[in-house]
Amino acid sequence: MQVSVLFSGGKDSSLSAILLEPFFEVELVTCGFSLLPIGEVASETAEALGFPHRQIKPDISILEKAYDMIMQDGFPKNAINFIHKSVIEYLAADNNITFIADGIRRDDRVPVMGQPEIRSIEDRFGVHYICPLKGFGRAAVNELVKEHLVIDEGLSENVLKADYETELRELISQRHGPGKIKEIFPTHVQSHVIERRKAGPNRTT
Amino acid sequence: MQVSVLFSGGKDSSLSAILLEPFFEVELVTCGFSLLPIGEVASETAEALGFPHRQIKPDISILEKAYDMIMQDGFPKNAINFIHKSVIEYLAADNNITFIADGIRRDDRVPVMGQPEIRSIEDRFGVHYICPLKGFGRAAVNELVKEHLVIDEGLSENVLKADYETELRELISQRHGPGKIKEIFPTHVQSHVIERRKAGPNRTT
Repeated sequence: MQVSVLFSGGKDSSLSAILLEPFFEVELVTCGFSLLPIGEVASETAEALGFPHRQIKPDISILEKAYDMIMQDGFPKNAINFIHKSVIEYLAADNNITFIADGIRRDDRVPVMGQPEIRSIEDRFGVHYICPLKGFGRAAVNELVKEHLVIDEGLSENVLKADYETELRELISQRHGPGKIKEIFPTHVQSHVIERRKAGPNRTT
Repeated sequence: MQVSVLFSGGKDSSLSAILLEPFFEVELVTCGFSLLPIGEVASETAEALGFPHRQIKPDISILEKAYDMIMQDGFPKNAINFIHKSVIEYLAADNNITFIADGIRRDDRVPVMGQPEIRSIEDRFGVHYICPLKGFGRAAVNELVKEHLVIDEGLSENVLKADYETELRELISQRHGPGKIKEIFPTHVQSHVIERRKAGPNRTT
């Protein structure tokens, strides 16, 4: 069975792929809207982890709609959730894809889909949406990360991560200047994966 | 890292153990109050799966309190949740245990712990509580079960499963006759694991 894991180059999506590796053929997928070379950054990280990787470029109208939402709301939650759901629907519409995964943890609040939204996507497109870390708290994730990954952590403005926020920030910066970003986005610590500590079970000799 | 997986002999707890196997030293743990030989049944299943197994026997007062709750409520939800939480606290109090897991799925409604309850246990006892299937829907679980397990499914009254419900039903039956069980418990399909379809990644040669 094949699974497409939404991949930002951060520790959560990397660990999700590692947890699925013994049971699925894993491909990493990064969404980009061509504002920044985030797909390339993610691609390098994927290679360091030893997974096949591809970039998808859904229609820019998704980013534009998210931009409208965030400018109206003044906070990122709804806009990020909208991009996340749209990207999962984009993947779900691909007939070759049956399992879609992402790196959502137990305590994540954004992005997150409610049960009715998940069931709607699964039923409409005939796919399975899975979150391998959904039953893991932050501390348990950190224990596993320590064992499996070497990471670099820094504030969100200094780490080029291939997540939905990155290009949304860039769009706002292009149109309103960097000051506007500080108004809208809380500063938070981002992780970027450098390499893998040990080979996965499929790769041991 | 070692993980203790609460084990009923059903497909969900078996699959949870299998998903954790490449990343943890897994032990299966079955709770019993000595009313029925459910620990022995679970032990045979654990052996068929290839995992070490042990039985725990928390104080019977837990079952008695659950009995009082179910007789007062007329439905099993609160009683089952109470046993589940008490058993996790019992394991968490063991200084040798750091990771506790169970087989809760995304759409399970009983037993389930809320975020505040989980955090309280994790903080008070210094453990991690993880649910490897929490991010998997029923259909995704079934796909994985098909690949990894041979199971037997039947109505709950005909399958001797080592879950919390089994001994609670027995206690009610002893005190009020089998008719009372039908009043309180909805009939539902139970799974019992027969064997494993393929060796885990740690056991391949």
